[in-house]
Amino acid sequence: MLLGYLGPRGTFSEEAAIKYSQQAGGNLDLREYPAIDQIMEALCKKEIGQGIVPLENSLEGSINITLDLLASSREIFIYQEIICPVTHHLVAAPGMEVSDIKELYSHPQVFSQCRAFINQNLPQVKKIPWHSTAAAALMVSWPLGRAAIVSRRAAGIYKLKMLASHIQDNNGNKTRFVVLGREDHKITGEDKTSLVFSIKDGAGSLYSVLGVFARRGINLTRIESRPARKSLGDYIFFIDLEGHCQDHRIKEAMCELEDQVVFKKMLGSYPRGGHGDDYNL
Amino acid sequence: MLLGYLGPRGTFSEEAAIKYSQQAGGNLDLREYPAIDQIMEALCKKEIGQGIVPLENSLEGSINITLDLLASSREIFIYQEIICPVTHHLVAAPGMEVSDIKELYSHPQVFSQCRAFINQNLPQVKKIPWHSTAAAALMVSWPLGRAAIVSRRAAGIYKLKMLASHIQDNNGNKTRFVVLGREDHKITGEDKTSLVFSIKDGAGSLYSVLGVFARRGINLTRIESRPARKSLGDYIFFIDLEGHCQDHRIKEAMCELEDQVVFKKMLGSYPRGGHGDDYNL
Repeated sequence: MLLGYLGPRGTFSEEAAIKYSQQAGGNLDLREYPAIDQIMEALCKKEIGQGIVPLENSLEGSINITLDLLASSREIFIYQEIICPVTHHLVAAPGMEVSDIKELYSHPQVFSQCRAFINQNLPQVKKIPWHSTAAAALMVSWPLGRAAIVSRRAAGIYKLKMLASHIQDNNGNKTRFVVLGREDHKITGEDKTSLVFSIKDGAGSLYSVLGVFARRGINLTRIESRPARKSLGDYIFFIDLEGHCQDHRIKEAMCELEDQVVFKKMLGSYPRGGHGDDYNL
Repeated sequence: MLLGYLGPRGTFSEEAAIKYSQQAGGNLDLREYPAIDQIMEALCKKEIGQGIVPLENSLEGSINITLDLLASSREIFIYQEIICPVTHHLVAAPGMEVSDIKELYSHPQVFSQCRAFINQNLPQVKKIPWHSTAAAALMVSWPLGRAAIVSRRAAGIYKLKMLASHIQDNNGNKTRFVVLGREDHKITGEDKTSLVFSIKDGAGSLYSVLGVFARRGINLTRIESRPARKSLGDYIFFIDLEGHCQDHRIKEAMCELEDQVVFKKMLGSYPRGGHGDDYNL
């Protein structure tokens, strides 16, 4: 089966695609796409069997385009979640040393995630923001006084010298990816369900929706609001809960919800990816 | 008094600063800053009396950096909210016509907000993403086949010819700005209060926090989650509610909240800016 992922090669998205492919027994062929909406489109057109996209990062928050596309698509479901640690590494062309570095390339978010290391070791170096870490890796293939901060995989692909590894400030940084398909995952007993809904305008309406779950002891692990793209102050809500949509109490909760929401869409039920990563809200 | 705003001149942030200055009687001097964190820093150091920053947009959602800085700052409060409509205009150097356009400059979000107009009128034109609309306005000062999509104010500042006005797809697009100061606004009777908190790990804990407000009939107009920047799945919540922190029932709610949250910070009480813009959650 073909698995679409967000390219270019050497990004954390490719790492997540490889991790999922290994979990799935290694019989997936990876196909690179330049944008998240193109992965979703390829999935709808059945060019690919599944696609993997980033959903949220523990430092930066949600990937808004993924949420907006999931809310508006009719045919796409979350099939699996894959949680990947985010680690950053200082690399340059073979022959380069840290003292040779004049310019440092990486994504702006990566600079801010490696602030302590950069301030201590590269305070005088010119920092050049680049649109992706994989593209930054390409920029430093020749020993011209340039270095980049990239993923371990990009260092390998572009045959770069590792000058310092694990230079991120925060060792708990993780990204949650979701594997998207055209159907739910079957029930495993350790599942999560994602849904999106909008509520009626009225005091206490969100409280009342959350009560549908709280009264049944259904744990929420995430709630996120996004603008409904109509008017300021009008939101849609994304919720993750513990359990599968075929569980009796979740079915019951969904029926009760029907009367309280303006719009509701199940985004899929799938096995929990990160044990120990979920908080209960 | 000095009012800091996010430059450069000609952006919607400057429009919002001018609107606030007029509301305040016109006796504010505007000072441009290159980044939101620098406005907050200038406020803490008392270089400026107030600062104005974008908080959320009805199409794009929250401005994450503003939320994160508000949550971590001890001395800054929201003093006022200012809601500005977002309109986009096609401009070029004097002498240019629509048929002369070969290249179109603007911020990537602006291209997506004017998709219908561009597809219909400029399908063959090369779209060049630029880091701000004001910087795009500067790029088209000479009649070299270039046009830009900018704010009405930028068109005036850079003396550009208006080729088409109000070309945005969605006429309801608005940005909510907040005026930040070192103290709350006094009570007006038509107020809102913003706060941020984190909750204990446990099923139903968010429901229980919302109950503190729902039981007292306090309307919520906004809830937003952001990563707590510690581990995946650990969030802080931003809530806007109707009323002033000196209102008896809000004081009471805050006391009850004390036992239910791990951390809580009042972000300020201020007059409601956008009548008719608020939903009740």
